[in-house]
Amino acid sequence: MAKNLLIEPESGFSIDFSGMGFGDAELSAMTERFAAAAVEMAKIEAGEIKNPDENRKVTHFTDRVEYSSSALFAEVEKFSEGVREGRIKSGTGKKFEALVVNGIGGSALGPQLMQFAINGPYWNELSSDRRCGALKIYFLDNTDSAEFADLLEVMDPETTLQLVISKSGGTRETKNNMIAMEKVYAERNLDFGANACAITMKGSDLDKHARENHFLAVFEMAESIGGRTSETSIVGHLPATLCGVDFERFLAGACAMDNWTRTGNALENPAMRLAAMWYLAGNGKGDKNMVIVPYSDRLVLLSRYLQQLVMESLGKELDLDGKVVHQGLNVFGNKGGTDAHAFIQQLNDGRDDFFATFIEVLADAKSIPISDGRVIGDYLHGFLAGLNRALLKKGRKTMMIKIARLTEFELGQIIALYERAVAFYAEFIHINAFHQPGVQAYKKAANGVLELADKLAAFCRANQGFSGNAEKFACAVDAADSVFEVQGLLDKAALNLDGVEREFDGADWVYLVK
Amino acid sequence: MAKNLLIEPESGFSIDFSGMGFGDAELSAMTERFAAAAVEMAKIEAGEIKNPDENRKVTHFTDRVEYSSSALFAEVEKFSEGVREGRIKSGTGKKFEALVVNGIGGSALGPQLMQFAINGPYWNELSSDRRCGALKIYFLDNTDSAEFADLLEVMDPETTLQLVISKSGGTRETKNNMIAMEKVYAERNLDFGANACAITMKGSDLDKHARENHFLAVFEMAESIGGRTSETSIVGHLPATLCGVDFERFLAGACAMDNWTRTGNALENPAMRLAAMWYLAGNGKGDKNMVIVPYSDRLVLLSRYLQQLVMESLGKELDLDGKVVHQGLNVFGNKGGTDAHAFIQQLNDGRDDFFATFIEVLADAKSIPISDGRVIGDYLHGFLAGLNRALLKKGRKTMMIKIARLTEFELGQIIALYERAVAFYAEFIHINAFHQPGVQAYKKAANGVLELADKLAAFCRANQGFSGNAEKFACAVDAADSVFEVQGLLDKAALNLDGVEREFDGADWVYLVK
Repeated sequence: MAKNLLIEPESGFSIDFSGMGFGDAELSAMTERFAAAAVEMAKIEAGEIKNPDENRKVTHFTDRVEYSSSALFAEVEKFSEGVREGRIKSGTGKKFEALVVNGIGGSALGPQLMQFAINGPYWNELSSDRRCGALKIYFLDNTDSAEFADLLEVMDPETTLQLVISKSGGTRETKNNMIAMEKVYAERNLDFGANACAITMKGSDLDKHARENHFLAVFEMAESIGGRTSETSIVGHLPATLCGVDFERFLAGACAMDNWTRTGNALENPAMRLAAMWYLAGNGKGDKNMVIVPYSDRLVLLSRYLQQLVMESLGKELDLDGKVVHQGLNVFGNKGGTDAHAFIQQLNDGRDDFFATFIEVLADAKSIPISDGRVIGDYLHGFLAGLNRALLKKGRKTMMIKIARLTEFELGQIIALYERAVAFYAEFIHINAFHQPGVQAYKKAANGVLELADKLAAFCRANQGFSGNAEKFACAVDAADSVFEVQGLLDKAALNLDGVEREFDGADWVYLVK
Repeated sequence: MAKNLLIEPESGFSIDFSGMGFGDAELSAMTERFAAAAVEMAKIEAGEIKNPDENRKVTHFTDRVEYSSSALFAEVEKFSEGVREGRIKSGTGKKFEALVVNGIGGSALGPQLMQFAINGPYWNELSSDRRCGALKIYFLDNTDSAEFADLLEVMDPETTLQLVISKSGGTRETKNNMIAMEKVYAERNLDFGANACAITMKGSDLDKHARENHFLAVFEMAESIGGRTSETSIVGHLPATLCGVDFERFLAGACAMDNWTRTGNALENPAMRLAAMWYLAGNGKGDKNMVIVPYSDRLVLLSRYLQQLVMESLGKELDLDGKVVHQGLNVFGNKGGTDAHAFIQQLNDGRDDFFATFIEVLADAKSIPISDGRVIGDYLHGFLAGLNRALLKKGRKTMMIKIARLTEFELGQIIALYERAVAFYAEFIHINAFHQPGVQAYKKAANGVLELADKLAAFCRANQGFSGNAEKFACAVDAADSVFEVQGLLDKAALNLDGVEREFDGADWVYLVK
């Protein structure tokens, strides 16, 4: 009989599948899929092309084995130590006190998860002494002027290290924020490059720009590591170490999990079993949502991180043979136990369309006695175990991951476990987990809108006094099939530009070019 | 033909249903449901019992009309002004600089959303001057010792106002944090009550405790307002005004939306239409997930807030006639555009099991020019419009909410819109939206685990040297049906207590009482 509880005794990591309710019969039916997935995973690790659409290798599982003994790793550590200890100074000779990470998607979510989990929610409010010289950290991970304006309220340009992360160097959001930040420095007669560093592919536009502008450092990112699996690479490393995180321990945790999840016996391989649970629960089509509930405040961002890792990897239109499959696996969640008073009502009583994954941190961060010999952490455990029991009683499905404590090592284990489970699951359903064609489609559509905006702006400049509803404007710029988009642009213009106004005619907006 | 774009011209709030693809035929089929829901809503607003299980009125829609002219409102404003201006001092005579909100579920999510949306992500890092004397804000919203320990790292007890929020006064998480915080004060010979205030029902345990301990203030909370709809009540008010938020404007926005959503013509009533979209998209059973994507960094918590409001309200086992229905509506989301590089891949290409709701803030917080005459905000709009277009091209469903700018007023509008849509939808599917029986079931199960913990602890104290696997321990404490729970307790004990150890025997943990 397949064991439902898999344990890695040295670190105390365990995963229990008993609450999923699948037994030997269901697992046996997966045997061929297990074998095939193991073969494909071996190809990935042997360096074969496993992202055929982009003709790329997939090296995040293997690169991290070597990473901590690499020259790049040593270089990053040295740079970071120099910054933390004040030997590498800002452009005006000051010690860096803060870091701005300018990057989106995988370049933001991983570092955010790491920072919150290891340094906690109030890191930026600690004094430099309490941080042992490590940097405060801020993120620019969108192209939202509110985000940028909010950062300017608290940022001292002279003591802030600007880290720009973009593999291709062309990521629009990141580029926008870099350009805007360069202007902030220029307006203060400060040298942006002397306060900046970058992570990018060799030869990218960003690489060239950084070198031309004498950035303090430019670190190379491998083409074969995708954004959503880049946390164990330089992308995770540099922000982490600048903020005092022990990245080597994180890598050790990831590699320990990699070793465990290379287990040939599928039933003893936690990633294979985890992927099998997803497959069985959702009939191989993602029919059940994956609800991630860490019972740990510091892991509140985990569901958001896994949402990207799982949904961007598995949400695909075509399988590897080009057949339309519309695959995917929804991920959402929040922290337990508090949010048990929120969406857990539905999990307990409502639609039976999910399986819950609980993550428990066994060691209390602090022993805080309350009453009757109980400490705060006893209640947290009680709520977790109680919820699990209540859900099982209702016939709902749950899994339980336990870690002894939450340090870099265990975070590495969790991320590596899910990375490999995603890769296995992709093999089960025969898709490419490592590309993102939908994102490309959306970028193309966004460019179309920006071009339409230019056209509309040119029309407005040439037609002062023109007025009408969105349809009239759309026709005027030969975009009758884009009334919705034209209306969006006019609404935006009416609130931001002096040249366009809008009025309500009782049914719709009427726009006027002034 | 029903208009798809509904506009409130004064504030500039609009909601566009065209991307949902439902026309007159589908809406006509809802006519009876619309009428019935309107009748029931009138009953709610007339003060009839609309939460039959708990025999309670539901007054959040109506109380807020009167609230800003009430004595309670004035009292809260006066107290808050005294605190902000330093006239109401801490127990040691200092000006309060920070606020700890100790409350869970609705008592936390609403204030968190408000704080982030109005004061932004870095409020706590601003100086007292920049905050105009308004308080920094922290939350205790769980029973996690890590959360408590993290707070202690940055909290100065002498300048921190402790706000305890619990309607019943019995909420375990809140009580735990209060007890722990009282000890923190006692250990420093500080008077907790002289630094504390409370929001609770008259006569609750917390009410008595607060009065006995001479809290600075105790404010009354109505029984008829549920946690998840309490943001427009005293629960939202006190934290907001202590942090400088204009709560009257927030109420004005909510009331303006209430007025609009009282429109008798269902097709012109945005809440009725919104609820109809949910109903039609999900076949009246929640078959499609509600994906909430605000294109605004400051609204990143909106999906989490709506997750509670919608799922706790609509996730129900029984309908009003006691029939098993297992209703619900999944809500998740994140911020656009950055997370378009994350889970949007699946929305675009993967499972067609959702409808997306976009929220756009039209006015840029700041005009930040990039290139070609474009500003940062133009790109954000372009990404939003592009994504919307890409999704529609794939036959996916979307809705678009636009607000002119993000202030207290618009936040009030959004919350009130969703509150009423939830109430209408509950009528469409004939359930009680205002109770949470699943949460009660889970609390009961949690108490069972805590009692089992006591039993196990007593056994361990009496049986030093006892060892075995979880099953053996479970049998020893007459809990053979609770092996999983016993194992959970033993794992927890092994990492936290000196008296219990665990060892791996090659297959499972073996526990030893020392």
